Amino acid sequence: MDFNSFSQNYRELLDKTSIHFLNSLQLANALKEAILYSYTAGGKRIRPLLLLATIYAFNEDVVKGINSGCALEFIHTSSLIHDDLPAMDDDDYRRGKLTNHKVFGEASAILSGDALLVNAFQLISEDKYLTPNQKISLVKNLAICSGANGMIGGQQIDVENENKQIDLDFLMKINAHKTGKLIEFSLVAGAIIANQNEQVISVLKKVSFHIGIAFQIKDDLLDVIGNKEIIGKLTNSDEKNHKITYVSLLGIDKCNKKLTEHYQKSMDLIRSLNINSSFIEEIFKLIIERDN
Amino acid sequence: MDFNSFSQNYRELLDKTSIHFLNSLQLANALKEAILYSYTAGGKRIRPLLLLATIYAFNEDVVKGINSGCALEFIHTSSLIHDDLPAMDDDDYRRGKLTNHKVFGEASAILSGDALLVNAFQLISEDKYLTPNQKISLVKNLAICSGANGMIGGQQIDVENENKQIDLDFLMKINAHKTGKLIEFSLVAGAIIANQNEQVISVLKKVSFHIGIAFQIKDDLLDVIGNKEIIGKLTNSDEKNHKITYVSLLGIDKCNKKLTEHYQKSMDLIRSLNINSSFIEEIFKLIIERDN
Repeated sequence: MDFNSFSQNYRELLDKTSIHFLNSLQLANALKEAILYSYTAGGKRIRPLLLLATIYAFNEDVVKGINSGCALEFIHTSSLIHDDLPAMDDDDYRRGKLTNHKVFGEASAILSGDALLVNAFQLISEDKYLTPNQKISLVKNLAICSGANGMIGGQQIDVENENKQIDLDFLMKINAHKTGKLIEFSLVAGAIIANQNEQVISVLKKVSFHIGIAFQIKDDLLDVIGNKEIIGKLTNSDEKNHKITYVSLLGIDKCNKKLTEHYQKSMDLIRSLNINSSFIEEIFKLIIERDN
Repeated sequence: MDFNSFSQNYRELLDKTSIHFLNSLQLANALKEAILYSYTAGGKRIRPLLLLATIYAFNEDVVKGINSGCALEFIHTSSLIHDDLPAMDDDDYRRGKLTNHKVFGEASAILSGDALLVNAFQLISEDKYLTPNQKISLVKNLAICSGANGMIGGQQIDVENENKQIDLDFLMKINAHKTGKLIEFSLVAGAIIANQNEQVISVLKKVSFHIGIAFQIKDDLLDVIGNKEIIGKLTNSDEKNHKITYVSLLGIDKCNKKLTEHYQKSMDLIRSLNINSSFIEEIFKLIIERDN
């Protein structure tokens, strides 16, 4: 299988599984619609595909990662819905469409994000392919990577430092959590599902740190030099929000250099494992070469 | 052990465990403070105590329920923080103190609730007393009871029907989810931890339906006839928010009658199991006799 087939086939299977699950949530139809609106708004599914590519790299059955991949994308989608709220980044557009709260109102946007956070764990608990120990390990890692010491904590230190002069180290700390921790889960979950040991997982955590930083630098660059039609939201939103970014701290040239360095470190580390990492590498390339 | 000792000892152990866990969340101190503020704002811990009382009723070691009880109280606390937000019920006071967003701002209040939802599942995954199968069963049930088909879905249909004329059946549907589902988890989790079968769990779900309705009728009565100093928030807030309640639909006398009926049904059902249910019964009494 080449990367394009892998990517297309499993994207379809991920979406089919997620949407089937979401359609089963029949209690509050307006909530289901609001969740589906954001979930199907054209995300690239980078994180779940990276999870599946990691399973593939260890020659394990990729289907074992579908529910965990959906759970991961649920958490990611929740963070987008909540980040766009007026009390947070106050964004009207996301991926070329009105943001969730602009269409469904703030109350439903808050509750949609809440439901995605919680029901993600249901998906893992109901997985048919994994052992109870694997599931518990996935639940634990997903909670830690998403929670107060992970993505959500990163969002908090980001929000509370808006309009403040922060340095490069602190910016990297924000990114390592806000963006990096879900990428860490992608790789670590793949390793858990493929029954890898702590030593391998420790290398994968380093990989995710570097590709996570590269991911965020690319985001910051796109905010300045990207094309609104392609990105699907207003450019220069960071400047509007008075946010310190890699670009505002380093300038475009040094950002490009730093992007290449962290990308290269992630590639060196993943290759040091001597696994079948070609699909992981393709996704890393996508991360730094994307135009949206 | 009498009920007062049980209640006091395990309340202390629950809080010690929760607060120790919350203090370990060092990434974003403002987030930790905001969470601790609401978590320690004087909740009665009815749900986790009911979970522990259920374990006790089946003669199983109560300590096995501490982490699950804390997880349950995390989810409950999250729902209070998010329900009080301006986009939801827009409340300034809760339990006699300013609400979370009034003290820490909306962004931190949203993120505090998010973190509590997610980190709840970490607490279950890290439990030292339970088998992996028990933990997975608890994760699954907590996610379902809290999520889009449970508490959060109930909150959605509540919010979207504000200012609308709903009937008694629909009001009971809202309550059975918004209030009832976490009470259901209290009883079901206790049964899972005590290795009870589906037949017992099915009776406990019926019990939780009735005591959940009784709980909500009592809340609605307190909103009208309660003492602000004791309740800790403004009375008549339901009327202010144009909410249909049991009181507005039935009047006070019929409410008291209905409260007694549902309480009695829950007592009859729990006694039908022939278990050591005295502490469960004490908590049910507390639910309908409380003055706040």
